[in-house]
Amino acid sequence: MAQALKAPFIAEAMDLSRLLNPRGIAVVGASADPTRIGGQPIHNLLSFGYKGGIFPVNPNRLEIQGLPCFPEIKAIPGPCDVAVIAVASTQVPRVLDDCARIGIPFAVVLSAGFREIGTAGTAVQAELDSVIEKKIIRVMGPNCVGFINLEANIRCGFGQGMRNPDLKIGPIAMVTQSGGFGMGVIASAARAGIGFNYVAATGNEADIDTLDFLSFFLERPEVKILAAYIEGVQDGRRLLDIGARALAVGKPILVWKAGNTRHGRIAAETHTANLTGSYELYKAVFQQSGFIEVQDVDDLIDIARTFQCKSNHAGRNIGVITGSGGAGVVVADACDEVGLELPSFSTETVSKIKTWLPNFASLTNPLDVTAQLVNDFSLLNKSIKAILDDPKFDQLIVRCGTLEGEPAEEWVQDLHSTTSQSEKPVHLVWGGSPERSSAALSKLDEYGIPWYLTPRRSVKGAAALSDFSQRRSLSQKLAKGKTVRSIPKAHLDLPTDRKRLGEHASKRCLQQYGITGTREFVLAPDKLELLKELPFSFPVAVKIESPDLPHKTDAGVVHLNIQNMMELKSVATQMLSKIQLHHSNPHIDGILIQEMVSGVETIAGATVDPHFGPIVVFGLGGIFTEILNDVTYRFAPFGIDTAHEMIDETKAKLILRGYRGKPASDVEALATALSRLSYLIADHSGLIAEIDINPLFVRPVGQGVVAADGLIVLHDCNRLIKPT
Amino acid sequence: MAQALKAPFIAEAMDLSRLLNPRGIAVVGASADPTRIGGQPIHNLLSFGYKGGIFPVNPNRLEIQGLPCFPEIKAIPGPCDVAVIAVASTQVPRVLDDCARIGIPFAVVLSAGFREIGTAGTAVQAELDSVIEKKIIRVMGPNCVGFINLEANIRCGFGQGMRNPDLKIGPIAMVTQSGGFGMGVIASAARAGIGFNYVAATGNEADIDTLDFLSFFLERPEVKILAAYIEGVQDGRRLLDIGARALAVGKPILVWKAGNTRHGRIAAETHTANLTGSYELYKAVFQQSGFIEVQDVDDLIDIARTFQCKSNHAGRNIGVITGSGGAGVVVADACDEVGLELPSFSTETVSKIKTWLPNFASLTNPLDVTAQLVNDFSLLNKSIKAILDDPKFDQLIVRCGTLEGEPAEEWVQDLHSTTSQSEKPVHLVWGGSPERSSAALSKLDEYGIPWYLTPRRSVKGAAALSDFSQRRSLSQKLAKGKTVRSIPKAHLDLPTDRKRLGEHASKRCLQQYGITGTREFVLAPDKLELLKELPFSFPVAVKIESPDLPHKTDAGVVHLNIQNMMELKSVATQMLSKIQLHHSNPHIDGILIQEMVSGVETIAGATVDPHFGPIVVFGLGGIFTEILNDVTYRFAPFGIDTAHEMIDETKAKLILRGYRGKPASDVEALATALSRLSYLIADHSGLIAEIDINPLFVRPVGQGVVAADGLIVLHDCNRLIKPT
Repeated sequence: MAQALKAPFIAEAMDLSRLLNPRGIAVVGASADPTRIGGQPIHNLLSFGYKGGIFPVNPNRLEIQGLPCFPEIKAIPGPCDVAVIAVASTQVPRVLDDCARIGIPFAVVLSAGFREIGTAGTAVQAELDSVIEKKIIRVMGPNCVGFINLEANIRCGFGQGMRNPDLKIGPIAMVTQSGGFGMGVIASAARAGIGFNYVAATGNEADIDTLDFLSFFLERPEVKILAAYIEGVQDGRRLLDIGARALAVGKPILVWKAGNTRHGRIAAETHTANLTGSYELYKAVFQQSGFIEVQDVDDLIDIARTFQCKSNHAGRNIGVITGSGGAGVVVADACDEVGLELPSFSTETVSKIKTWLPNFASLTNPLDVTAQLVNDFSLLNKSIKAILDDPKFDQLIVRCGTLEGEPAEEWVQDLHSTTSQSEKPVHLVWGGSPERSSAALSKLDEYGIPWYLTPRRSVKGAAALSDFSQRRSLSQKLAKGKTVRSIPKAHLDLPTDRKRLGEHASKRCLQQYGITGTREFVLAPDKLELLKELPFSFPVAVKIESPDLPHKTDAGVVHLNIQNMMELKSVATQMLSKIQLHHSNPHIDGILIQEMVSGVETIAGATVDPHFGPIVVFGLGGIFTEILNDVTYRFAPFGIDTAHEMIDETKAKLILRGYRGKPASDVEALATALSRLSYLIADHSGLIAEIDINPLFVRPVGQGVVAADGLIVLHDCNRLIKPT
Repeated sequence: MAQALKAPFIAEAMDLSRLLNPRGIAVVGASADPTRIGGQPIHNLLSFGYKGGIFPVNPNRLEIQGLPCFPEIKAIPGPCDVAVIAVASTQVPRVLDDCARIGIPFAVVLSAGFREIGTAGTAVQAELDSVIEKKIIRVMGPNCVGFINLEANIRCGFGQGMRNPDLKIGPIAMVTQSGGFGMGVIASAARAGIGFNYVAATGNEADIDTLDFLSFFLERPEVKILAAYIEGVQDGRRLLDIGARALAVGKPILVWKAGNTRHGRIAAETHTANLTGSYELYKAVFQQSGFIEVQDVDDLIDIARTFQCKSNHAGRNIGVITGSGGAGVVVADACDEVGLELPSFSTETVSKIKTWLPNFASLTNPLDVTAQLVNDFSLLNKSIKAILDDPKFDQLIVRCGTLEGEPAEEWVQDLHSTTSQSEKPVHLVWGGSPERSSAALSKLDEYGIPWYLTPRRSVKGAAALSDFSQRRSLSQKLAKGKTVRSIPKAHLDLPTDRKRLGEHASKRCLQQYGITGTREFVLAPDKLELLKELPFSFPVAVKIESPDLPHKTDAGVVHLNIQNMMELKSVATQMLSKIQLHHSNPHIDGILIQEMVSGVETIAGATVDPHFGPIVVFGLGGIFTEILNDVTYRFAPFGIDTAHEMIDETKAKLILRGYRGKPASDVEALATALSRLSYLIADHSGLIAEIDINPLFVRPVGQGVVAADGLIVLHDCNRLIKPT
């Protein structure tokens, strides 16, 4: 772990050009039967018109599906960039070695029978791993259905999805961790007119994984939109990195992440044996980067269409035009729910549209042009034009009634002329039958005008566009903040013989990163009787300083609101005698005496996640954390702007701005502390496993924050030496 | 209001038989042009084959669209049950009077130009209202597109939706408040194969409204499922009553309620001029009765299909079978999110299915029968049968891969034989192209096997079924509880000259309904100096008792935690002198001295909503109410079981069961108090407008609840005499 975290922000994209566009493909375990797993790839490559060499390998045949067959891999004439392997699992490692030996750079292993079948597959999995470790030949799969390069007519794999006749070329590259289901989703999307250039089903991901494909696709000019069905990834940091890159290059990644709930996780573990990590952290990645989360097939189709519009830069102000008031109401509801705004029309727009709308029409947004006018193209399109020209609006949603057939085609043509001067996205809710308007809908696709079958779905599309734009701007702003550390790196004197630091020791580490704790001191137990006065006033808190009592309240070694010296000594003496009875015989560093502080109670924590690396969590304290789970996550380190984002995402925002006549809190100091905490964990993630500041009191503006308790937990020694 | 609430639970269904199945239909303002508003109804009735009499009325013609035309309504030969009116708005009242005079019981007014056009329509609206008030002729509309009775081939109205050729007969009756949009939704549903028996677009609802149609449809044997697009109803109580009736007769009402958000409400006000009331209260109605809320076109289609399955009684335990692990993961996630359970298979089921599944298949729920087996009907169907036979399961969700064409049809036939012995619903996720499997899908519809195009949508269907079943059982249980009042009706001595009661006076009313307040007494200001001792111990709270200071804390007349008699007198004296300076010169009843109490802080309130009548609201106090808005509503009066439901719906449940080592609270006493509060408001809703108990402290088990503050607000005198 310590090693892996040294360079968490560099994701080197594996060059998959030769895999996805090979000069030749060998099929090892080739079958003459085009329905068998070893016969399908050859049949698919032939029938879809692959132009490179196809080399069946099978010692028992001289010819397969009309092609010369080779007895072993080294007999093929080449050039060959991919070996498709469809032999029994036990033979796979040897075949891979043979392929590597003759310089084939990539293998696609269709064979199953490895890790996914449990203990029965352990031995052969280990053999496979040792071939992969050499990194001479890179492996897709095993237990995968293969990949498709539509442009090059390469259908390199097996199964119904591979020979799907509906697939058409388009700007989308899709990766799926589920072969069967993923290809089914792609089939649905293809039927809806969505075009793909690449499709890859990654199987067990023993070597090349989803993230390798996404990294590669992001840099390909022919790919404009990426899509992924994932159940889990091993390297969450790289996922974040890819998401950031997606924003930088302006290509959204539509991600369908499954296996997120109790039932779903159990199912996913059975299915892909991926440890999926916390869904909260995936969501944090998605919401902070270029991933757009989708949760169903039609979601994926709609949003894929959305991003094929002319510009994927768009703000949140939406103009709505319908031919029926009801549709306007539904769209308005849906906009409100996702935080899209419906400003009123500018005076200029109103004076324009009133010239062609009837007197009684209310000139408000959503604009109801009434059923009659929908049939008069010119008036509807004039209204669309007027609102496109109104600088108050960033996007339009239009419901055009139930046009079908030729009139639909004509209107679409007209709409195209109307909108072609504007870069603003126009989203269409299509009320007619898609079957009876297929020509019109194809034209819309061609013109980059996204269409949807229901009002709510159009709003999802508009929201996805503005979310993506907003995150792009935000990431540029935050990137600037990132260049300046909120606190310099400090050396921490961490013990090597303990798993935890006591409260006082933990707070000293926090202080080294500029996070102030309560004023306090540790008194040796034998000095208690001699204590005469304190460096701060009563009331005070008295605790036991010990690395062995992380849950001090439960252990009964926390007393708050001590009013005077007599009470202090009596309480401390009682605690010390109580601790003698503690079963774990804890190490005692002394009596911790500290000032009482107050403010808005928050919690701040940091941990090193096995998949996502160092993260910071923040939320309101007490009931808000424990009952409401109202917390937010960020990946460390981060700047003060990001910390402000965190605060704004929780209910803390409402409390901190001053509540029921209480003063506003020092949010600036809180944000600074959160950023510093993120540097603390990031700088020392090799040693520190976990930091808890609970409570972190936020005082009124100008008075800063105070850590009233703190706990630092170190990594297990075992874990430190474990290679990652 | 007082009048209306006397019998809030009786909804007499207007008999609409003659409207929807008329012996003859007159069309006043008939046109020879079949595209005009006065020509369309005649054309539609003729072309769809209406068997009754059609009587065009137009003084300028002898014949219209091949039918004899009459100069005035009284000239028609009859029998005639419906007059369709398509004349200018100003003529409508007179025409209605004429129709009434010859005994036509119903009119469908297509004409626009009334309330919906604002002040220009006020005068003619008033004339219309005075005709309607006589209740001799009942009016649908004005400004409506009409109605359809599919079975009787009656297309009585105008617009594209009325002549929709895709409509087919089925068990659904739909009412819509939006003509254009509603007919568009119906068109989409019809294209998806959903069949209707009635469709009604209610327009302005000057007389016959959505609730009249729903009440009527609920009792029709040919209607099995109801659907409604609504933006608002006037009588929320009747809505609740209809929802309760829906549960009693076992017919779900799929309701699409729009105009719920800030933007949506503005749009709805522009659109239908309906005051829509609080969405929270609509949701409370829906969740407590037979309404199933849908929020989009595909939602409506899916759930309509769901309820056409063999039985709408189904529990929450779901067995899932897929041909791909990924689909299982997605279904499992979605089940978790809506609270459906995925139990493991019984030992018996496991031993059955392992005989035909390969060794490596994990015999867990979701069951992945793997891609190969999906093509072997018998094995898949055997697995379905085995899980249907397992008593642990209430419903099945099956994803059948991407079957299409003839194989799909064959499999559906097989599936039907497999499932026909069981009453348990089987939901199918259809992975193939619906166009290329239309025969198979029609068969599924015929066999009552609901199908869906995506995994999540199937889960919504299963959840809707079990929600409906669960509410049916619950309503039967709660109905029993309703027969016993939790407190007898009491007379309250409410003032006639004040708008509010002071705290002490309010608490005395609460006490009469068995809701205990703090121990306290009111002291005349001139008796303050004489006060020697209290009937309870210090610390105490001191307030001013006044009907004119409902916000005592803001007015500075609340002091808590007074420690002794000296402090008490000093504080009270200060308050009294401060109150002299108060600008409103409040009436002072005395000094209120009360014990300090503690417990879990909740709030309970009651109010009389103009649309929904007396309601009770409950939530945790303080921050939970003000920041989180974590409150729940019920319609008064209700029993103790319902009160428990309320408590369980809020975060209060978690706090009250004992939190961070705190004792469990007296939930039983809390539930009793909420039920009693509901009787208090219901018994006196004619006089009391609002009751606030804030805070209501819930003490540990056995110690009851205490109202620490209370306020009763009475109706305005104006409001009391206003007829409703």
